[in-house]
Amino acid sequence: MGINLEKYKFGEINKGKRNLITDVPGVRVGHVTLSDGAVQTGVTAIIPGPGSAFREKFPAAMHVINGFGKSSGLIQVDELGTLETPIVLTNTLSVAAGLEGILSYMLPDHPEIGITTGTINPVVMECNDGYLNDIRGRHVKEEHVLKAIADATEDFSEGAVGAGRGMKCYGWKGGIGSASRVLSIGGTEYTVGALLLTNFGKKKDLTVCGVHVGEAGISENGFEKDTEFEKDTEFGKGAENGTDTGNKKYIEDENCTASPAADARDQGSCIVLLATDMPLTARQLKRCAHRAQSGLARTGAQISGGSGEIVFMFSTANRFPHSPEVPLCEYRFIHDDSLDEMFRAVAECVEEACISSIYHAETVTGRDGHILYGVRNNESSFT
Amino acid sequence: MGINLEKYKFGEINKGKRNLITDVPGVRVGHVTLSDGAVQTGVTAIIPGPGSAFREKFPAAMHVINGFGKSSGLIQVDELGTLETPIVLTNTLSVAAGLEGILSYMLPDHPEIGITTGTINPVVMECNDGYLNDIRGRHVKEEHVLKAIADATEDFSEGAVGAGRGMKCYGWKGGIGSASRVLSIGGTEYTVGALLLTNFGKKKDLTVCGVHVGEAGISENGFEKDTEFEKDTEFGKGAENGTDTGNKKYIEDENCTASPAADARDQGSCIVLLATDMPLTARQLKRCAHRAQSGLARTGAQISGGSGEIVFMFSTANRFPHSPEVPLCEYRFIHDDSLDEMFRAVAECVEEACISSIYHAETVTGRDGHILYGVRNNESSFT
Amino acid sequence: MGINLEKYKFGEINKGKRNLITDVPGVRVGHVTLSDGAVQTGVTAIIPGPGSAFREKFPAAMHVINGFGKSSGLIQVDELGTLETPIVLTNTLSVAAGLEGILSYMLPDHPEIGITTGTINPVVMECNDGYLNDIRGRHVKEEHVLKAIADATEDFSEGAVGAGRGMKCYGWKGGIGSASRVLSIGGTEYTVGALLLTNFGKKKDLTVCGVHVGEAGISENGFEKDTEFEKDTEFGKGAENGTDTGNKKYIEDENCTASPAADARDQGSCIVLLATDMPLTARQLKRCAHRAQSGLARTGAQISGGSGEIVFMFSTANRFPHSPEVPLCEYRFIHDDSLDEMFRAVAECVEEACISSIYHAETVTGRDGHILYGVRNNESSFT
Amino acid sequence: MGINLEKYKFGEINKGKRNLITDVPGVRVGHVTLSDGAVQTGVTAIIPGPGSAFREKFPAAMHVINGFGKSSGLIQVDELGTLETPIVLTNTLSVAAGLEGILSYMLPDHPEIGITTGTINPVVMECNDGYLNDIRGRHVKEEHVLKAIADATEDFSEGAVGAGRGMKCYGWKGGIGSASRVLSIGGTEYTVGALLLTNFGKKKDLTVCGVHVGEAGISENGFEKDTEFEKDTEFGKGAENGTDTGNKKYIEDENCTASPAADARDQGSCIVLLATDMPLTARQLKRCAHRAQSGLARTGAQISGGSGEIVFMFSTANRFPHSPEVPLCEYRFIHDDSLDEMFRAVAECVEEACISSIYHAETVTGRDGHILYGVRNNESSFT
Repeated sequence: MGINLEKYKFGEINKGKRNLITDVPGVRVGHVTLSDGAVQTGVTAIIPGPGSAFREKFPAAMHVINGFGKSSGLIQVDELGTLETPIVLTNTLSVAAGLEGILSYMLPDHPEIGITTGTINPVVMECNDGYLNDIRGRHVKEEHVLKAIADATEDFSEGAVGAGRGMKCYGWKGGIGSASRVLSIGGTEYTVGALLLTNFGKKKDLTVCGVHVGEAGISENGFEKDTEFEKDTEFGKGAENGTDTGNKKYIEDENCTASPAADARDQGSCIVLLATDMPLTARQLKRCAHRAQSGLARTGAQISGGSGEIVFMFSTANRFPHSPEVPLCEYRFIHDDSLDEMFRAVAECVEEACISSIYHAETVTGRDGHILYGVRNNESSFT
Repeated sequence: MGINLEKYKFGEINKGKRNLITDVPGVRVGHVTLSDGAVQTGVTAIIPGPGSAFREKFPAAMHVINGFGKSSGLIQVDELGTLETPIVLTNTLSVAAGLEGILSYMLPDHPEIGITTGTINPVVMECNDGYLNDIRGRHVKEEHVLKAIADATEDFSEGAVGAGRGMKCYGWKGGIGSASRVLSIGGTEYTVGALLLTNFGKKKDLTVCGVHVGEAGISENGFEKDTEFEKDTEFGKGAENGTDTGNKKYIEDENCTASPAADARDQGSCIVLLATDMPLTARQLKRCAHRAQSGLARTGAQISGGSGEIVFMFSTANRFPHSPEVPLCEYRFIHDDSLDEMFRAVAECVEEACISSIYHAETVTGRDGHILYGVRNNESSFT
Repeated sequence: MGINLEKYKFGEINKGKRNLITDVPGVRVGHVTLSDGAVQTGVTAIIPGPGSAFREKFPAAMHVINGFGKSSGLIQVDELGTLETPIVLTNTLSVAAGLEGILSYMLPDHPEIGITTGTINPVVMECNDGYLNDIRGRHVKEEHVLKAIADATEDFSEGAVGAGRGMKCYGWKGGIGSASRVLSIGGTEYTVGALLLTNFGKKKDLTVCGVHVGEAGISENGFEKDTEFEKDTEFGKGAENGTDTGNKKYIEDENCTASPAADARDQGSCIVLLATDMPLTARQLKRCAHRAQSGLARTGAQISGGSGEIVFMFSTANRFPHSPEVPLCEYRFIHDDSLDEMFRAVAECVEEACISSIYHAETVTGRDGHILYGVRNNESSFT
Repeated sequence: MGINLEKYKFGEINKGKRNLITDVPGVRVGHVTLSDGAVQTGVTAIIPGPGSAFREKFPAAMHVINGFGKSSGLIQVDELGTLETPIVLTNTLSVAAGLEGILSYMLPDHPEIGITTGTINPVVMECNDGYLNDIRGRHVKEEHVLKAIADATEDFSEGAVGAGRGMKCYGWKGGIGSASRVLSIGGTEYTVGALLLTNFGKKKDLTVCGVHVGEAGISENGFEKDTEFEKDTEFGKGAENGTDTGNKKYIEDENCTASPAADARDQGSCIVLLATDMPLTARQLKRCAHRAQSGLARTGAQISGGSGEIVFMFSTANRFPHSPEVPLCEYRFIHDDSLDEMFRAVAECVEEACISSIYHAETVTGRDGHILYGVRNNESSFT
């Protein structure tokens, strides 16, 4: 199809070169995808920057939008404001494999851990891919995590790959999406990037750049407007004269997924990773992370009760030594009054990364014959 | 004009009878509006229900989206999960008057307070109306608060009234907006209502039902689409072939406000009050309150750093006695698994209440000749 | 009496010169005490440092131990991590007077507030002095706040003065207490000081330097051990052979207060202010503030449900400009790994300041003939 | 020795029958201890009650005193207020094994998990036992977790067992400690119990029932007072006339541990588990959990920066169904005004459980010949 997501305008701020989280210098992403019958899952690893994250930590913060989630490592990030390992994304029942993988990656190069210094805080985040994947089989192993870390590069795929292999977003196949923005503050350019693991939402709610797509999906003309749904409202009155009161209920969608149950309850999650090279304190990163909800909301997210929406953000601009030479450290930070453009950029790239995860995902068939259609592969859209 | 906001479809859930927060039985709202030259301010009081809120407290919770705000009473609500006074909204420098007014309202009928029992926790929330109002003059007095409480009724005005008199929203005149939703859980109907004091945003960001209105404002056909802005994007390509890269910066608006400074920095605030008759615990009310950000985001909110976005929610379904006869109390609550429809309803009525505050606000001229145009009175829209 | 509180050893770290919060350079404290029959209340103002706190803000943080309290201004401190006004302590129903007083102090010297820049966030904290004071009369006025601010000096009184005039601590007369510690990190000396407004606790729980004083109070030999209470325990077995199981209940004290009701329920509060010249971020200040609970616990505090225990801490070492010349600011901070001594110092000076508030408080008679005995004036101790 | 910890009086409330967390009906505890040369570690499992915790969840809450810790599962507990698995304690680098073990225990009996319903939230908490244990070897395996769960009973050992095998407390051998309290509210008896995994503190700070033990340790007469340290203070002046100013620094202890490094920095952690049969909401459980810090503080805890102090509390009195038959559920809860005795009880049993962990721990020799002396086996105490 001739659809080019780049033509869509998610906000107003300039996009980065790749329009990926890896536009933030030093950030790398690696996937391991497991795709074999009922096994449709994987691992995505994010390397925050060069060198040892343990010896030179990254300022970091987390924000819980809806804490229905089993992520690990967030408590310490909240206390100390630092990230000291790669971040691993995987399925909910494989958090343990994520932890083991990060330890096996970090321990050999850090003989001091657990001997002459303290321990280490691996960050693992997850979504439930149980609709497509045999999640109970716990097929992700430590070696997959190590490989995802080893394979991390600046160019990486989006869609039904890595931890996103089995995920579902707005009733379509979801997974990994990314986007970035470049903004200028005080004459200096800074980049912020988002990487999302999307696994939430009902088809009826999908909204792209403010257009309510809903059941309409995508055609060769791009995302379509759900005219059926909106025909009786003020904005839709050009189409035909609706008489309904505007209170019509959505019909539960049941035509595009192999099993109606797939959409029966919005029990997913969305992990939002944000990276920037702007020098920010942990408190400021947390403020930025709060704005991710706005980006999700613009895509139609309802933040349902069973959906673990968790945001994690780090900055590459200051590194905090594990063992400082002197206790008094010097840093530069952007003043809080200059954060508005960054707040806007966060929401924009979260919105775009979410849609990008759907846009790039191919159709996947998994356990018990469950199918999730890629929005661009959906037969029902091209009749 | 023949525009009827009721025809706009903010989401899918049925609206309440009045489409106001007072659709929640027992809730009443009163305004005192001060409008005299440079004095453009006021008080809005919300009575949570009949009888003494102190002796029979309301389950309540608060959520801070962006804590740039001077609200009072929230710490105790967070700890005890109860509301024990009316809620007063006013301007930032009149929080003290709000406190005095609530005390003067409560103390006479509660001779036990401070004598045989503890003290009382007044809840006062605020936005900064200093663009139109001589806020430094602290013109709101205790008696205005008492009058707003005394005048509270089920039918109340929206727009440039009460605490909303001097507020600005998306570069237009804002103020008080309200909306409600009725949902059914387990065969029982429940109502949730929102009342917003809106005072944030830039004109370029205004979005109504997903349509990017931006500078276009409203005409006799209703809210207009900002076609200039979107012409070069995928969704706008029907209009004309844009060649721009999609990275064009918005032009700062300077045509509709008397002073460009009015929009120079998004330093406002938005207070979101939510009420429901659904039986919810304080923890659950807090979860609901988190969803308000989604509703704001859909109107274009950027949650800028200088904008105090604070959410407060109470339920009228269980009242907690100040002095229980026995320490073991019995209550009914909705199960967390049944909250999704409520979460959706919260976002919907917050979105609608925000637009409603703009829709209903008339043009106001205040201190130093500053003018904020009501979106329906805006001359520039009707040439 | 020949008792010298300085001889008591609250921990191990060196005390500051005055052993007051004003050992932190620049910090000043002022009291206005209202003492006239049923009016036993007042104001205590803390000036964080020289110059305008609004134009050059102080890093600050708050921590809620038990949020039964009506303090104002804390939400914004939590978001922005800065203090921009003096801090005012007073009684619960006079928070409004505190707000008005701070505004009246700040507005004249800051004509930009509410005109060309945003508003201001006054911090007012409170305890309920209703047992001694006619709190319903709201006798504290704006002018008292202004006078307390104007009178602030480095040397100030402790005990039944200022906001502490009507407060009760461990069944004795409480009020204002202060202490300080000097510690060395990386060869540099830093000072931390505490100022407490104490208004909590039952007599039976009072503990001084680990010695359970309880009902015993103080004699010319200093604080006494409550030997009656402890005689049947392992540590007390030198005194006589107890046979009780160690489960004996304390007897409610009723001999020292004019009304048994005074101690019937532990409904007080304790405001803990901490100041330091150590360069710390808001996140680090919040970590320090968490340790205040440990200091209170060592004095016997039970942190009862109706007692608002709130901690506020600021640092004088970095000032954040309201309007920075450039958005990128440079600061020095102590590394988190070097905070342990500060954590210890916080707990120590909170513990000492609490006991100091009791030690210095004289006997006060207030409304309805209520009497609270100063621990050193207590007739029952000197028979 | 004839020392009986039961004779010590930690507070005033009656102790439970066993003075263990298992005095709360239904609660069971199991240990697996790994002790073989450099492997000195283990697992402790807590079963919250009979039946499936997943299908009938327990109200629960967590509180972070100092978030230097790698615990898993806490985010969801904070959001939903429920516990749905056993709780596993182990060493820091074995959290993954804890997760795998809980999954392997829960999945077979719950075929619906990950298939027709969502996933499950295992709670694993940890301390760093790296001083004695070869923590890098990750010797704890899934089967150890399964065995600890299977072995859980009402009578269990304290001291250097289970997850406590390698832990250190106040420079002595620490590990697992427990205590309970029985209180009466409204004529009904309720039990609260604590189980601590203690791994923090310096010897100089150890305080037992208010007596500063410090270096003195225990003799056949019981815990000794550190008279050397206190001789020059007011309370100690009966012993001899000190002339020092009270500012003497503690000497770093170096005589009782095999390696001075063991005490060099207070990098441990303390996990506090609390259980009760009192009907409390998650919000109320969180309030209770806040009081744990007071109990720790009374033993001398400094809550150092590298010590992860995390509190977890659950109630057995109401069970929340995973799939409720109707969405409106009925529960009874204690009124907040009746919580003071529970707050007191929490602090008391946390204090006692901490000392009990030391009291019961035997001397353990681990990796690299590191030795931690049990306070009752300490040769240096019995010369």
